[in-house]
Amino acid sequence: MSSYSHAELISTGAELLSGRSVNTHARLLGERLGRLGIELKRDTTISDDSLTIQRVLQEALQRVDLIIISGGLGPTNDDLTREAVADVLGRSVVSDEASLRALRERMRRAGRPLNPARERQARIVEGAMALSNAVGLAPGQRLEHEGRAIFLLPGPPAEFEAVLDEHVIPWLTEQRGGAAALRERVLSVCGLAEADIVQRFEGANFPPAGIVTAYCAAAGRVEVRLHPEPHTDDEALDAAAERAAELLGDAVFARERIELEALVGRLLSERGQTLATAESCTGGLIGERMTSVSGSSSYYLGGIISYADDVKVAELGVDSDVLAREGAVSEAVVRQMAEGVRSRFGADYGLAVTGIAGPEGGTEAKPVGLVHIAVAHAGGVTAERHVFPGNRATIRAWTCRKALMLLFRQLR
Amino acid sequence: MSSYSHAELISTGAELLSGRSVNTHARLLGERLGRLGIELKRDTTISDDSLTIQRVLQEALQRVDLIIISGGLGPTNDDLTREAVADVLGRSVVSDEASLRALRERMRRAGRPLNPARERQARIVEGAMALSNAVGLAPGQRLEHEGRAIFLLPGPPAEFEAVLDEHVIPWLTEQRGGAAALRERVLSVCGLAEADIVQRFEGANFPPAGIVTAYCAAAGRVEVRLHPEPHTDDEALDAAAERAAELLGDAVFARERIELEALVGRLLSERGQTLATAESCTGGLIGERMTSVSGSSSYYLGGIISYADDVKVAELGVDSDVLAREGAVSEAVVRQMAEGVRSRFGADYGLAVTGIAGPEGGTEAKPVGLVHIAVAHAGGVTAERHVFPGNRATIRAWTCRKALMLLFRQLR
Repeated sequence: MSSYSHAELISTGAELLSGRSVNTHARLLGERLGRLGIELKRDTTISDDSLTIQRVLQEALQRVDLIIISGGLGPTNDDLTREAVADVLGRSVVSDEASLRALRERMRRAGRPLNPARERQARIVEGAMALSNAVGLAPGQRLEHEGRAIFLLPGPPAEFEAVLDEHVIPWLTEQRGGAAALRERVLSVCGLAEADIVQRFEGANFPPAGIVTAYCAAAGRVEVRLHPEPHTDDEALDAAAERAAELLGDAVFARERIELEALVGRLLSERGQTLATAESCTGGLIGERMTSVSGSSSYYLGGIISYADDVKVAELGVDSDVLAREGAVSEAVVRQMAEGVRSRFGADYGLAVTGIAGPEGGTEAKPVGLVHIAVAHAGGVTAERHVFPGNRATIRAWTCRKALMLLFRQLR
Repeated sequence: MSSYSHAELISTGAELLSGRSVNTHARLLGERLGRLGIELKRDTTISDDSLTIQRVLQEALQRVDLIIISGGLGPTNDDLTREAVADVLGRSVVSDEASLRALRERMRRAGRPLNPARERQARIVEGAMALSNAVGLAPGQRLEHEGRAIFLLPGPPAEFEAVLDEHVIPWLTEQRGGAAALRERVLSVCGLAEADIVQRFEGANFPPAGIVTAYCAAAGRVEVRLHPEPHTDDEALDAAAERAAELLGDAVFARERIELEALVGRLLSERGQTLATAESCTGGLIGERMTSVSGSSSYYLGGIISYADDVKVAELGVDSDVLAREGAVSEAVVRQMAEGVRSRFGADYGLAVTGIAGPEGGTEAKPVGLVHIAVAHAGGVTAERHVFPGNRATIRAWTCRKALMLLFRQLR
């Protein structure tokens, strides 16, 4: 009987080795499998070369009973995974009727032709179960072979994640005896880096025996997970989560796995309140994040991207004397931006940011990374000043996270 | 004699497989080696397990003459790379006097003790050349063994990059007699999917013999690369690029590797013209993309995120009767949005989008994925209607790309 406790990933795609793309599959898969107690033992990243794919798959089949292969399911002639896998298993490649119908229907709705190249995407290894792809056109596939499970997933990260979460993880959860196997507590943290969190934990001799910590970091946000060892009971796990929350204080914004923009949206929605944004250095990023959440139109009214100084004056009512005296990146200006967008849009909250994202434009007094953030509300305006390290993209991402965090604190 | 034309990377570290870190080494190394005409053939990512490191190294030594191993050079007991490599080569591990002196000097300046754990970092494989690490404490190492070169580099990305650029790349450049320019031609394409491109190529018996095509797709953009086989001369390569551009027509937005937002920005900047945006379903994404380019403040004035209908009327001057009659997602409204933001901001171009990103809000007549796009300019307004497949994020990404493409066509 298969236990599916050890897995290997085979990532195919020339772009992963030529300097064009970072391979993010291993992190995502490792994180998802880890929650099920499955260890990802290896990721072998190779080009779209049929013989190499075959050899690597043959070797992996000797070592583990769960193999995930990403990439090479598209319509072009460098998409070779289907055929390579079929060869190794001594099977043929066949057209999947359901996938073909789905493909045809999608193309019809998009008003595009279903040409022979596109039709290739509905081809699967003989005996495979096609796994629908909510994001892209090529379905994933699940194969079973001599007690081993082989999954073929599309290469684009959004599609890989969609098929993984919709099909692979639920199937594995069932095979391994249900999701009950997963006992963990999660803290979503904003404003502390992984190293800071580790430092605080170590200083307090945390975690206690029987608890293991794990971290997953994105820009400005860290997910702290507490896993119990088998003999640890739920009470001890809850006590550890409580202690971790104490140690991290205000930086914990949720006791669950949730994005800050979804949490802020949930709070606004529950209260029937609304938000408008005024963005300078982030150029629309905060609005983009807020509207990435489905249903956000019930609380997010919109905003002004006031990249040029004239726009700050004309569209947000920033005082041109104050602007000239204090400069665009100043507490005085960000406060007027927040108030301006709040009153202009008739929103309950006005959230504003202005800063120097670099790499140009820094001075001794106002260095690259300097950002002012403000939230205007019925009770007045609350403002913060930050200096973020990193490059342009990092500074913008931090600014967005800190702005949402300021709003969250105001809402809480 | 060694040619060092094919390389493999072995990335060690539990954090790369457990969901904590993304492995960025492969991209960086692939990019750097590519410039020297060296192909990175494989990245094998494994945990810090001595036996696995040994096996993977043995296998790699059978395939290529250039191997880079990252990670496992630190002070803790899961740093096993030195010993594993020494075992495979039948050598011992010795203390390197120069590295030890450097370590001692650094510790002295930092006022920290040089304890035995830290001293481990000055140990190298017998016969190795130590490679100084400007960022961290553990030096890298270069080994030569039976005509093969093996590099041991520290795992933290900043240290990996520092040692790579200071020691590995200069050494390889010298070995290979200078940097051989990578022979390829690139077409950046927007508005045709990979499958469409393949279809057009196949219909025209493209590519000719001696040329190999490769594709890399992101949302709404495809990079088509033409690689010559060794015997193919530059003239034939140029002719093939010319023919590919003919076949793809208007969809080719650049004969180089460039993001659409950077190209649009370059055109605006050259002409001293300006842009303002009005976004509904993308919620700020277009502004965010435009301002991701450093220096964009010289041509991007800002925009209105008109997520709520009231905002379209109040901030963009959309006629409320037209809005009620045609609906927010309509050609009439997107035209008024584009004109509104252009005149309001005093910009040369006004770019507007409105659509249904889903998953809610679709109807028979106006399905999820329906998007209207318009650009207002001195000569009037140009509008387009699209129905994009995919989920919310995909529809928004496509909308952004198509909007920038419409603006690009107008600029061109």
